[in-house]
Amino acid sequence: MDDGADLVSRLHSEEANPALLEQVVAGTEETTTGVIRLKSMATEGVLKYPIIAVNDARTKHFFDNRYGTGQSTLDGIIRATNLLIAGTTVVVAGYGWCGRGVANRARGLGANVIVTEVIPLKALEAVMDGFRVLPMQKAVQEAGLVITLTGDIHVLRQEHFKAMKDGAIIANSGHFNVEIDIPALEKLSVDKGKARPYVEVYTLGDGKKLYLIGEGRLVNLAAAEGHPASVMDMSFANQALCLEYIAQNRDNLENRVYDVPESIDETVAQLKLEAFGIEIDTLTAEQEKYLNSWEMGT
Amino acid sequence: MDDGADLVSRLHSEEANPALLEQVVAGTEETTTGVIRLKSMATEGVLKYPIIAVNDARTKHFFDNRYGTGQSTLDGIIRATNLLIAGTTVVVAGYGWCGRGVANRARGLGANVIVTEVIPLKALEAVMDGFRVLPMQKAVQEAGLVITLTGDIHVLRQEHFKAMKDGAIIANSGHFNVEIDIPALEKLSVDKGKARPYVEVYTLGDGKKLYLIGEGRLVNLAAAEGHPASVMDMSFANQALCLEYIAQNRDNLENRVYDVPESIDETVAQLKLEAFGIEIDTLTAEQEKYLNSWEMGT
Amino acid sequence: MDDGADLVSRLHSEEANPALLEQVVAGTEETTTGVIRLKSMATEGVLKYPIIAVNDARTKHFFDNRYGTGQSTLDGIIRATNLLIAGTTVVVAGYGWCGRGVANRARGLGANVIVTEVIPLKALEAVMDGFRVLPMQKAVQEAGLVITLTGDIHVLRQEHFKAMKDGAIIANSGHFNVEIDIPALEKLSVDKGKARPYVEVYTLGDGKKLYLIGEGRLVNLAAAEGHPASVMDMSFANQALCLEYIAQNRDNLENRVYDVPESIDETVAQLKLEAFGIEIDTLTAEQEKYLNSWEMGT
Amino acid sequence: MDDGADLVSRLHSEEANPALLEQVVAGTEETTTGVIRLKSMATEGVLKYPIIAVNDARTKHFFDNRYGTGQSTLDGIIRATNLLIAGTTVVVAGYGWCGRGVANRARGLGANVIVTEVIPLKALEAVMDGFRVLPMQKAVQEAGLVITLTGDIHVLRQEHFKAMKDGAIIANSGHFNVEIDIPALEKLSVDKGKARPYVEVYTLGDGKKLYLIGEGRLVNLAAAEGHPASVMDMSFANQALCLEYIAQNRDNLENRVYDVPESIDETVAQLKLEAFGIEIDTLTAEQEKYLNSWEMGT
Repeated sequence: MDDGADLVSRLHSEEANPALLEQVVAGTEETTTGVIRLKSMATEGVLKYPIIAVNDARTKHFFDNRYGTGQSTLDGIIRATNLLIAGTTVVVAGYGWCGRGVANRARGLGANVIVTEVIPLKALEAVMDGFRVLPMQKAVQEAGLVITLTGDIHVLRQEHFKAMKDGAIIANSGHFNVEIDIPALEKLSVDKGKARPYVEVYTLGDGKKLYLIGEGRLVNLAAAEGHPASVMDMSFANQALCLEYIAQNRDNLENRVYDVPESIDETVAQLKLEAFGIEIDTLTAEQEKYLNSWEMGT
Repeated sequence: MDDGADLVSRLHSEEANPALLEQVVAGTEETTTGVIRLKSMATEGVLKYPIIAVNDARTKHFFDNRYGTGQSTLDGIIRATNLLIAGTTVVVAGYGWCGRGVANRARGLGANVIVTEVIPLKALEAVMDGFRVLPMQKAVQEAGLVITLTGDIHVLRQEHFKAMKDGAIIANSGHFNVEIDIPALEKLSVDKGKARPYVEVYTLGDGKKLYLIGEGRLVNLAAAEGHPASVMDMSFANQALCLEYIAQNRDNLENRVYDVPESIDETVAQLKLEAFGIEIDTLTAEQEKYLNSWEMGT
Repeated sequence: MDDGADLVSRLHSEEANPALLEQVVAGTEETTTGVIRLKSMATEGVLKYPIIAVNDARTKHFFDNRYGTGQSTLDGIIRATNLLIAGTTVVVAGYGWCGRGVANRARGLGANVIVTEVIPLKALEAVMDGFRVLPMQKAVQEAGLVITLTGDIHVLRQEHFKAMKDGAIIANSGHFNVEIDIPALEKLSVDKGKARPYVEVYTLGDGKKLYLIGEGRLVNLAAAEGHPASVMDMSFANQALCLEYIAQNRDNLENRVYDVPESIDETVAQLKLEAFGIEIDTLTAEQEKYLNSWEMGT
Repeated sequence: MDDGADLVSRLHSEEANPALLEQVVAGTEETTTGVIRLKSMATEGVLKYPIIAVNDARTKHFFDNRYGTGQSTLDGIIRATNLLIAGTTVVVAGYGWCGRGVANRARGLGANVIVTEVIPLKALEAVMDGFRVLPMQKAVQEAGLVITLTGDIHVLRQEHFKAMKDGAIIANSGHFNVEIDIPALEKLSVDKGKARPYVEVYTLGDGKKLYLIGEGRLVNLAAAEGHPASVMDMSFANQALCLEYIAQNRDNLENRVYDVPESIDETVAQLKLEAFGIEIDTLTAEQEKYLNSWEMGT
């Protein structure tokens, strides 16, 4: 089981003892980043055993990103700052699954939320979901809190810091600490200090203060406890069931990256519902037949 | 341009004048049902010209189903009944795009919403979105209003009518009028009359009254005005741009069903944003480069 | 039973047959406006029989204004225009009970809501509830829809019409049709016509079109069906129980305006809960005692 | 400045040096409890100096209770448990200002919320706000999390613990630690241990585990940081301005409890808006006149 494909790359590297790699039957991978790296290895023909991309299970990334990141990002920010979210103008950069999660949770806590995007379709969904959509340069002028979750680099940079209001709080919940251009922020600042645990205060030349949480690292890990157990349980159930599957089906698998079998994804959803004590309907025979026969009903 | 593939089937039928079919260069299709029928025709090798599935554009079905159906379903129900949604327990059968739209709009109007599903993953999303999920047999016992949007047959049937509360209102917003088993309802009833325009009242043997809107047909068409223009504009923009595309590219297309070109989908999203007067960000050169190079940032 | 104190004033006027007034034992009044007029009459010593201000029951104005006006205002606007509320920037003028109701329902339908106010405390509540608060002159520049519910005059006037965007829709849900300065709008316009039933389109000198619903009258009455029955039932229950009370207690009442007896207000709430089939808790003996004795627990 | 009237009672007690009391010119009080105690003292004629009830300012208790308690209660619970609120059935006992705050924030974080009440009118508001309302005995059977904010004693007691599901979490956000009958819980338990910091796990006779946060004390103080600064600033602004007022007006005040002057309440609201950088409208001369003259407009 790997997280980020770090173990896999190490095992496949020249420094590693080749005997180790030979003992590995198959593997699983938890993260988006890892899946991308593994697919490159498979394409280049260097991957030496089959791997299931647990990350891509719907019971993993639908829940992890929307509900897990949504809550834990704001949890980290509140722990670090004790900010009242109600009444705060919150800018959410990126309206992917994570951004949607955070935008909804911020609104649910009483914030007025502005979304920034680079993709027209996502921007349009944000508009239809009732959020304001602005270019970042305008958005930061109103922001009490700015959160980046884009997967890209330097989403907040010099021109944005200059336009921010005194007292604005900045946090990142994207995977890497590159979304906020911290060197640019340092360069603009005449002073820097610790405002609270996990919070640095930067004083700019004009006396304005900006607050950066957790050095721009994933705020739910930097200042809170990461995802709640009740989101991680679905990831780990996928891991366990995929390991069983891959062990039993090793002989029929090639050395490439596989999706989580549909039946495992469904089993995990079913098990989670049972853990909640929730029952759902099943199709009647008549309904099954209807769904398979499009002549009826027209 | 077709809606439901009715024109296409007619043109391809034995009764039609073959000269007509020969004049057709290419086509587009607006609906899910039509796309399914056309794909069957293509698979069977009988389709005589290329068709673009406008329905499958993201700027069509994302917006049409969630926001259009969401609002217009409740609009139809309110016009037909003048029901106060606030405080009403509303059962939404099906948590697809349409069901999500209706569940969210009902909650936004103050309802307590129960979702029913047959697919565990969708049921789980409904739970995580804060809705109660129950089997229909239990759900109807609490319902003031039940809305079906499943695409399946007899979602409400004899055992459910029997379990409903006196005064419950029933509506369908799925494509066909088969989701509610009206013959079964008729059979259970000792009396039937008109309660208001578009509303039939059924009196059951025990004196209980159930109210059916619009004879179980799509309630937004039966009792309101269908989708708002500001949703249909995106469908029609897709139609127009696809017709232009298919005319220009006819020589390179086979006689099968094509997706809407990605660039048209994006253009429509961009045009809609402009119509709202909304500007968004664009990637910097540095950001473009970063997205294409996964080594950075790790 | 009176609505607006029109019957009462007539009975007390010099033109009325004095024999009629003598036959009246007591009365009730449904509206805010009526209550104000009756209190003036009582203060001036001219009121000839006791009246209960049904309007002031909490089971009347809490529900009527927030939930009734909230839904029916948007219902009227949607019927008149078939506007998609999702994605629309809606300006709500006034954050009293009615304004709150409309602001919440608009947000629940996917709007981005801006509130305008003249009272700082209410403005602050709107901010904390997650709405944007702006002066009207700025708000109208972003508005797709403007709704007035302030109880005051000329909330929308010449300078606002001039600043509105092309295509903006204007509606009033306050009691009188004076909140929108229609004469000023007429004066600015070079053309006026009917866009749809209940919708007038005004063309301004620069070609911009503004849409006025229901001639600026209460939009839920002008273009929909007023309040739903399930809100009015509480008003009428108050009316019925107050009539019984006032008939039984006539001898002990002076000729002035009385509040609805607390016990009737509570009875109506209790009856409404029963109509919903909802049970609630009752205090234990220990809890009753605790509430009456502030020494415990400290 | 006092919080709970503890200093005042001490100064007025027989043990205190009478010289101290003579030096006190006037005072202010922050809490509901303190105000009640001081009013008793005033009624009994023992209060020796005037006191302003800062607690009763609208800019204090409207914001403190709804937005402060709403967020910080869930913040405390999340810090203590790392529970995912989305998908959790949360029971909120009490639909006063605090209960409303918590119910709304829990819903905003994705919970399915059940409200319990003893007052029909409040129960009805909860229903109309879209919440389910149940008696506690039924509510606890579905609860993943139960929060008490009633101001009363033993809201959760033996029969409720017995009916709870395995794994249920219990927290209090009412002022005193008497809302949960902890002795009854201890008596039902065969084992007790520490699950996490601030969380005790009780094992009942049937093996069921219940989790109690912060020993039933105010969970936002026990497990988080109390109210955010941006709520407390309004309380402290009221304190400061009331001290100035009471010093300047001492000679005209009797030895009793005074409300915060309306003008101070309004000033604080205005200052808070300015701190947010928010401008609002002011009445025109025409509007002022209209509001004072009820003949116009009818």
